[in-house]
Amino acid sequence: MPKLTISDNEYKTRVKNVKRELVERDIDALYLTSSVSIFYLTGFSHIPTERPAALVIPVNGEITFMGPMLEADHIPLKTRIIERVKTYFDYPGERHPINKFAEFLKQMKLHNKKIGTDNLAGASGTWGYKGPAISEKLRNASMSLAKDIVEDMRLIKSEEEIQFIKESAKWANLAHSLLQEYSRAGLWDLDVALAASYEASMIMKKTLGEEYEPQRLGSTPASARFRGQVGAKSAIPHSIAVKSPMKKGDTLISGAGSDVGGYSCELERTMFLGTPTTKQKTYFETMLKAQDRAFEVLGPEIKCSVVDEAVAAVFKKARMGRLMRHHTGHGLGLEGHERPWIDIGNEKLLKPGMVVSCEPGIYELGFGGFRHSDTILITDAGTEVLTYYPRDIDSLVIPA
Amino acid sequence: MPKLTISDNEYKTRVKNVKRELVERDIDALYLTSSVSIFYLTGFSHIPTERPAALVIPVNGEITFMGPMLEADHIPLKTRIIERVKTYFDYPGERHPINKFAEFLKQMKLHNKKIGTDNLAGASGTWGYKGPAISEKLRNASMSLAKDIVEDMRLIKSEEEIQFIKESAKWANLAHSLLQEYSRAGLWDLDVALAASYEASMIMKKTLGEEYEPQRLGSTPASARFRGQVGAKSAIPHSIAVKSPMKKGDTLISGAGSDVGGYSCELERTMFLGTPTTKQKTYFETMLKAQDRAFEVLGPEIKCSVVDEAVAAVFKKARMGRLMRHHTGHGLGLEGHERPWIDIGNEKLLKPGMVVSCEPGIYELGFGGFRHSDTILITDAGTEVLTYYPRDIDSLVIPA
Repeated sequence: MPKLTISDNEYKTRVKNVKRELVERDIDALYLTSSVSIFYLTGFSHIPTERPAALVIPVNGEITFMGPMLEADHIPLKTRIIERVKTYFDYPGERHPINKFAEFLKQMKLHNKKIGTDNLAGASGTWGYKGPAISEKLRNASMSLAKDIVEDMRLIKSEEEIQFIKESAKWANLAHSLLQEYSRAGLWDLDVALAASYEASMIMKKTLGEEYEPQRLGSTPASARFRGQVGAKSAIPHSIAVKSPMKKGDTLISGAGSDVGGYSCELERTMFLGTPTTKQKTYFETMLKAQDRAFEVLGPEIKCSVVDEAVAAVFKKARMGRLMRHHTGHGLGLEGHERPWIDIGNEKLLKPGMVVSCEPGIYELGFGGFRHSDTILITDAGTEVLTYYPRDIDSLVIPA
Repeated sequence: MPKLTISDNEYKTRVKNVKRELVERDIDALYLTSSVSIFYLTGFSHIPTERPAALVIPVNGEITFMGPMLEADHIPLKTRIIERVKTYFDYPGERHPINKFAEFLKQMKLHNKKIGTDNLAGASGTWGYKGPAISEKLRNASMSLAKDIVEDMRLIKSEEEIQFIKESAKWANLAHSLLQEYSRAGLWDLDVALAASYEASMIMKKTLGEEYEPQRLGSTPASARFRGQVGAKSAIPHSIAVKSPMKKGDTLISGAGSDVGGYSCELERTMFLGTPTTKQKTYFETMLKAQDRAFEVLGPEIKCSVVDEAVAAVFKKARMGRLMRHHTGHGLGLEGHERPWIDIGNEKLLKPGMVVSCEPGIYELGFGGFRHSDTILITDAGTEVLTYYPRDIDSLVIPA
């Protein structure tokens, strides 16, 4: 049976690494409000709402989830890492949950200790949440920001994580193939996207079998979409939707991914509906050259900024520097964007085990946008491109 | 042509109301980082990432969006409210964007003024963002939390907003009808959900016509789903997914919604695959009685807590108080959950124009969960139930 969730051993190692870092920093406990960090350390995925929730990892003591009652029954079904669950009924309640959290911490004898946290408010503060900072309720504790402990750990992917991202690349590839296959003039972008995502998701489930389930909230097993980047709107990198159907001559920018154990790759392509014009071809080939250049430069012990500079140099040489709207890429894994940033301002070194998007783009308002995104693993020897959808223009022209 | 976006006049009124409130509080400008608040005031929906973005509304001066370059070209296509756009290239950049934001505020002559904000950090801080608080860069400004200005405005829905939520109820109803129609033993919950959402979305688009587009990021026009609340897992209110196919005898909890101008209703039903057992029927009828009771009590000038107490009384009388896992409901509109909370701890009064979910539920681990959710408008005269999918057990049994 295919392996579809992170092993208990790996979760234990992650928690051990957190505790080691806490000892190193002379902190007594870590208090996390990020649902992604909590999932990363335990395998338990909760739904962040206005209801405060936190995971407490003491150096000595039980790993404790504090949260609303409606999350409690779910925990033992998903994780063996959480040793204790403390609940309040609901938010706001007759007593604000943050008061209860302060009490729970007192019961854990942490109320007068050093506590690191990813959020000094003590709650993720989603939606209409309002409340006092937990530090106000724990006057004798010393609370400090330690968001980087888990974020730093997430920078370098383990063998298990890399396998999941590789598996995700397969299903993103399928979803993208179907997206390309189903695209034609007269269809609305969402029509094509929903049909391709449905088809790819069902095949993915049938292939991976009964044990497969998406781990992230709202995550379709496999998906591909245009997100409104169709025709002239492909020039809007953060377009959200488009009203009109696709038509012959459109430049299209797609995106695909899939959820394997909560991890996803990133795969994006520039495609054309019908034979591209000379101008479309020129822009496409320049973008491709920039991505090729990034592939060459990316590697272990290379500064992130150097990659971004190399990409900018390609666009500037082609006199298209003014068409750039963003940097070269970002880390990914559990979240859409993660560190490291492949950005001119990031002097940090790429390291083996990092997984990043490589997606140089150019955009001309009223004309179109041009961007591929591939998922790259930094290795000891260099890089491995994990996504493998065709990148050349001939493969990306849709007959119209 | 159907009206599908909030009118410019209403956006202008909203901004005017913000300014009036600022004057009232003796604040010179409002600095907003929430993408939902920015959408609410301007109609421009951006994609929140690690890249800082903010809308600045000065009492005197131009309404200014500050953000990454990749959002800039989109703005004039979506709003006439934003008068000026200030950009940085990308995050983190050679100079942290927060430094540039501080400069922009200086150019706006706000650097030594009183600024209210929804976020003292100056950035929504999504994903791997890190940066200094904007207040550190504006030592002569006086910054204070004023998150409630926009949240308070959003509490009472306008006529336009109510029309959108009513329109949304139609398409949620269609998506839910298809979800029920497509459900059968042997199918995976996601199979049914994706098929129903696809079909309903395409019909919605074809019906509303070319001008229709979803306004919220990642929002399918119409959708219906189970989110893993199938069989024994229906007892997990925040289930995320389920591995096994549906089978005869399962209790199912569904959810449906649709995006009309960025607004959605909330519609959820408890259904049965095959004739329910006596125990399933008893739990269902008790839940229905609690919801009926909430419908009776909800109304203008009624304390939210009173509604929640009335619901709890029904469950306790049926000796099912221990099966409750959450309060009666919450406000909704632009976000899944908004104020007001229909919660025992909320002494505030319901007011005409508020739109809330009404969703008492009971959950027995290993057996099942029972919850309907309907969307209720508080009116001068009482209430109007905006969702209208059948609630009785006979209508909710799926032949198996």
